[in-house]
Amino acid sequence: MRTHHCNQLHHSNIGETVTLIGWVNSNRDHGGVSFIDLRDREGMTQCVFRPEENSAAAELAKSLRSEDMIQVTGKVEERPEVDGVSTVNPDMATGSIEVSATELNIINKSEVLPFQLDKELSNEDMRMKYRYLDLRRTRMTRNLRLRHRITKSTRDFLDEDGFCEIETPILSKSTPEGARDFLVPSRMHPGSFYALPQAPQQYKQLLMCGGIEKYFQIARCFRDEDLRADRQPEFSQIDIESSFVNPDDMHALVEGLLGRVFKDTLDAEIPASFDRMTWHDAMNTYGSDKPDRRFGYELKDLTEELKECEFRVFSGAVANGGVVKAFNAKGFAGATQGQIEKLTQTAIEAGSKGLAYIQVRDEDRSTWRSPFVKRMTDAEVEALREKLDIEPGDLILFGAGEWETVCEVLGRIRLCCADLQEVLKDNDELNFLWVTEFPLLGYDEEEDKWNAVHHPFTRPIPEDVPKLIEASKADLEDESQRYAGLRAQAYDVVLNGYELGGGSIRIHEAELQSAMFTALGVTEEEKESMFGHILEAFKYGAPPHGGIALGLDRLAMLVCGESSIREVIAFPKNNKGMDIMSASPAKVDPLQLRDLRIQSTVKEKTPESV
Amino acid sequence: MRTHHCNQLHHSNIGETVTLIGWVNSNRDHGGVSFIDLRDREGMTQCVFRPEENSAAAELAKSLRSEDMIQVTGKVEERPEVDGVSTVNPDMATGSIEVSATELNIINKSEVLPFQLDKELSNEDMRMKYRYLDLRRTRMTRNLRLRHRITKSTRDFLDEDGFCEIETPILSKSTPEGARDFLVPSRMHPGSFYALPQAPQQYKQLLMCGGIEKYFQIARCFRDEDLRADRQPEFSQIDIESSFVNPDDMHALVEGLLGRVFKDTLDAEIPASFDRMTWHDAMNTYGSDKPDRRFGYELKDLTEELKECEFRVFSGAVANGGVVKAFNAKGFAGATQGQIEKLTQTAIEAGSKGLAYIQVRDEDRSTWRSPFVKRMTDAEVEALREKLDIEPGDLILFGAGEWETVCEVLGRIRLCCADLQEVLKDNDELNFLWVTEFPLLGYDEEEDKWNAVHHPFTRPIPEDVPKLIEASKADLEDESQRYAGLRAQAYDVVLNGYELGGGSIRIHEAELQSAMFTALGVTEEEKESMFGHILEAFKYGAPPHGGIALGLDRLAMLVCGESSIREVIAFPKNNKGMDIMSASPAKVDPLQLRDLRIQSTVKEKTPESV
Repeated sequence: MRTHHCNQLHHSNIGETVTLIGWVNSNRDHGGVSFIDLRDREGMTQCVFRPEENSAAAELAKSLRSEDMIQVTGKVEERPEVDGVSTVNPDMATGSIEVSATELNIINKSEVLPFQLDKELSNEDMRMKYRYLDLRRTRMTRNLRLRHRITKSTRDFLDEDGFCEIETPILSKSTPEGARDFLVPSRMHPGSFYALPQAPQQYKQLLMCGGIEKYFQIARCFRDEDLRADRQPEFSQIDIESSFVNPDDMHALVEGLLGRVFKDTLDAEIPASFDRMTWHDAMNTYGSDKPDRRFGYELKDLTEELKECEFRVFSGAVANGGVVKAFNAKGFAGATQGQIEKLTQTAIEAGSKGLAYIQVRDEDRSTWRSPFVKRMTDAEVEALREKLDIEPGDLILFGAGEWETVCEVLGRIRLCCADLQEVLKDNDELNFLWVTEFPLLGYDEEEDKWNAVHHPFTRPIPEDVPKLIEASKADLEDESQRYAGLRAQAYDVVLNGYELGGGSIRIHEAELQSAMFTALGVTEEEKESMFGHILEAFKYGAPPHGGIALGLDRLAMLVCGESSIREVIAFPKNNKGMDIMSASPAKVDPLQLRDLRIQSTVKEKTPESV
Repeated sequence: MRTHHCNQLHHSNIGETVTLIGWVNSNRDHGGVSFIDLRDREGMTQCVFRPEENSAAAELAKSLRSEDMIQVTGKVEERPEVDGVSTVNPDMATGSIEVSATELNIINKSEVLPFQLDKELSNEDMRMKYRYLDLRRTRMTRNLRLRHRITKSTRDFLDEDGFCEIETPILSKSTPEGARDFLVPSRMHPGSFYALPQAPQQYKQLLMCGGIEKYFQIARCFRDEDLRADRQPEFSQIDIESSFVNPDDMHALVEGLLGRVFKDTLDAEIPASFDRMTWHDAMNTYGSDKPDRRFGYELKDLTEELKECEFRVFSGAVANGGVVKAFNAKGFAGATQGQIEKLTQTAIEAGSKGLAYIQVRDEDRSTWRSPFVKRMTDAEVEALREKLDIEPGDLILFGAGEWETVCEVLGRIRLCCADLQEVLKDNDELNFLWVTEFPLLGYDEEEDKWNAVHHPFTRPIPEDVPKLIEASKADLEDESQRYAGLRAQAYDVVLNGYELGGGSIRIHEAELQSAMFTALGVTEEEKESMFGHILEAFKYGAPPHGGIALGLDRLAMLVCGESSIREVIAFPKNNKGMDIMSASPAKVDPLQLRDLRIQSTVKEKTPESV
């Protein structure tokens, strides 16, 4: 239907007769001659309809409107001079030529569009309802093609390294660990349900037991969670598992993979290896397990320096076994009252009772604005100056209390300051980091129960393997201390403050896995019914193994320079889990439910009951 | 954990100290020396534990059993001569060397396996329950790696051709066309359901409307059908859609793709282009819409020749407007009584009342065994001889009646004969074929209704487009004739009698699509509620487009030389839709159902009610 695409014709094609097909991007009339920018996926070509070439076609061309689908045949010509001025368009790849049309075939007329394609549209519902039009925008087409390039590069890289892509089931089994499952009623086994996988975690470990050694999959995963922020009920991950590896091997693999992806998509060079930081150091220094290190504002410990401070918030916290920490938001002394309120609000939401800060006007401490600086000794102030590198114009923000809470509060305020100060404006750095040695288990006070921080298959670091067993038998008064401090052989890869992915070395011994389930409060009966197959699999010479999963949607979002994953998904759901375009989810035929032997417990409002 | 894999060491490594890791494949003791074949994914290496190297390790090695996971360090040595005889094993890639072990690290002991890995196991339930062990067999590992190679080659080929892989939703919308949907209750929208996609058909067409032009996806599809034969509730297809194409373009694309796949996997050359045959010719000549042309047995028409035959089965059929057809199963005159019964049974199952046949003993017709040959004139017998190329030893099989039924019956008998005669034994031909011009619509007598033969988005061949509109308005007595004879711009690609895939050029105009829905009995209200978005999408300059879907599981099965798709799927379901390994589907926590606002209507037997 075409001889060339719309971004292909150059000076060298002049004189050729060509056929193009595409959408009318614009139609301008100049003295009875129609100038049509014809658009396809690759670009645009100007087609000119002159009455002297084909009067019927020229007449028809006048009627063309935006997004009509047409086929044009004509001769490639140099763009002429008009009144001595060149009409060459240097901003267009095909800008030196035009097609002098001799034939026009209208293939599919377009009605008036619900919105213009060359303007940004803030009404997201409208964009989603007409997603098939929204995707015609250059930006969206580019995003989808970049996403394709990411997955292709990923597959090329892993294939070259001997990894084998293996599809695991979507009709899977519900397990109570983790988030809420989507369920699928089974018609053949009435009363039973499949679950959509939250991740192929168990399958990939079973593949290791099956001797596959190097597995990967770009896997669809499902979580039936309330969709705060930028989440999707279904998402994709680059899922990797390998036998006979240690964390260094996995780090090198992912560094190579991401290097390839950023090279192939953006032609960007990233570091051959990424910095590493333990979870403890990341929390302690940046107040986050996924620190954005493109700016400083590092948290400093002032526990020792302020333990006797007259300001009770500080000394009281230390007396209770807590810490005092602070960071210096350089140059932000001039924060407005509104900004200070925003920071205070952030601190409170993160678990603090308020926000202690100092606005540093001048060298002289007497000029410092703060409710408590007057109650500090000179020595204390000097300690601050030194540890926090205080200069006129700085804003110092404090936290005091239990270490992890203080870190988290200051971590959030740190990001909020950077945001308000726009310190990252026009920053195009790609800052990668490995965060390692996460806690193995976390204590849930409400339920008086330990949960896996990563997941129940994560291996402790070697020295903590015996401690896990010992801890389970220890006679303790304070249950919240039982597994405290145990570290996991887990690692997250972080890019610019986003968690790109996470993984771990796994448990491969039935006994240790069973002990881990016990620690998590899984009963012997549940172990058998829910995890029996994997505990059994570990009994037949299961190999040591580990892996990682990278969030494809987020990776694509960062590569495309977008701020929402919805911009890199062809047909996303909205934040209520709906596809507005196809109106899904939807009511179904009652016969379908009868076949599945289920019924809805939602009472339909009948006309009588209203 | 290793310096080499187990298929890597050669003569050139002699003298090196290496570390290997893997499974104990076998352990033979010869005079206090343990000879262990150590196996990993790539192959095997013989490790020898001699007391003089490390007596503790040698002692430990004696205790090793099959499938123990061990790590061995030692020196690569030439295999010695024993009593003047070389111990080199030429059948083993590493057969010229052995590793003289100095260290042994037992990583994970194995219990006694439920079955032996080096023997075929006919108990499929057992294989599926311990799939993680079953996958350790060389054949299974090879199958999964070949499947990976197929998908990788597919992606390489399509990427090089400008196709963009795009993921479409799994949480999709139920449509009443086609097979039964799997449903997913929505928690956020109680009483509403997602459906798992039977294919991404509408999404890929919407991507064409979105200007993507060249889409593909290795897509997971779901059909809640009763699982006869070799079906799976979830399966994968190579899903392709392209704008601005005609059937020739799609054929060339698929020919190139399959050429690449067979080259990359089996190093096999296949024809650069495949023969084409209309559906009518395929049915008429082979009695199948997916003919296996690796053997002859072509159906011949004898309607004219036997229209006055004294044998009423033939002449009566012709008098009723039917046909008489036959084929020659060369050399099968000696079919046993049991084989003839099997053929008759096949004919009856396919819709015939019985089976008419002639066993040709000798040239002389008097020697022919048949209940009806005596009632044929010499001219009729001569016509048979000529059209069917009859020679002594042949078996001639007949069908008489309505054309399509006769074709189908003979087509099935044809395959059955070939099977009984083992004509394809040791045949490694790859016989590809395009079947084209399928009927557009098929009449369902029971429901007095027309159904789409391919699917409702299939375009009629150009000359039949106006006929579709006309037919819908025609004033007819016999509803079963309304759309008879309309042909679709559809095509199937067939390999050795298997349908590898099928596709079509699609409708891209809202009006024609609406007319097609009308022909299928879709009401105006249903058009809006179920297909509103695609009808709407066609109004904005939708491009002409077409596509195809190839069954990945079947393609992998044929490439691997397997006879069941379960052999090329890592974790298949059994024919009751169950995963025996993880015991899925399964009962779920009643709280999960409460959250989803559904309940099962299956009555649980309580102890009281039993």
